[in-house]
Amino acid sequence: MIKVSVMYPNSSDTNFDIDYYCNTHIPMAAELLGDALKGCNVDYGLGGGAPEEIAPFIAMGHLIFDSVDTFQNAFGPHAEKIMSDIPNYTNAQPKIQISEIKV
Amino acid sequence: MIKVSVMYPNSSDTNFDIDYYCNTHIPMAAELLGDALKGCNVDYGLGGGAPEEIAPFIAMGHLIFDSVDTFQNAFGPHAEKIMSDIPNYTNAQPKIQISEIKV
Repeated sequence: MIKVSVMYPNSSDTNFDIDYYCNTHIPMAAELLGDALKGCNVDYGLGGGAPEEIAPFIAMGHLIFDSVDTFQNAFGPHAEKIMSDIPNYTNAQPKIQISEIKV
Repeated sequence: MIKVSVMYPNSSDTNFDIDYYCNTHIPMAAELLGDALKGCNVDYGLGGGAPEEIAPFIAMGHLIFDSVDTFQNAFGPHAEKIMSDIPNYTNAQPKIQISEIKV
């Protein structure tokens, strides 16, 4: 299994509408990705490792697929629609990571 | 529920022993954290969002707790032992993020 992590870097200027993200963006993406999407998780940043430190990422969306191929085949045809929704909930530019789920 | 994400930044100079991490470090940390630890997941970076791009993080460990308080109470007494094991598997300095699990 692989995980696609979409990580939104945080700063004092970052805004992020977590309600829109959870209730509109993720359900829209999940519908477009269909059965290829095996699981989904959203984390909202509370803080960093030291007291008073901000979270490195204001939010992270983690999407689980069987393989990189099934992700690419499911995401490719809908990439433009999914990505063009980003300005509706944040001014951050996400970092993307594809990982193998080891544990 | 909250998630503590321990994220190891990647570079061309980064080394990371994923077998030691999964089979020695995480089990040792899990035993020390005890019942406070509600779940654990390890991601190993395969790539970034563009072809040929390296993963932003060589590995990420995600630890789930009921609350920030239960994490701090469980981790505090064992922080030195857990952190001092890091050089046994990597030369990277982890970024820490504490998140609220929204979805």
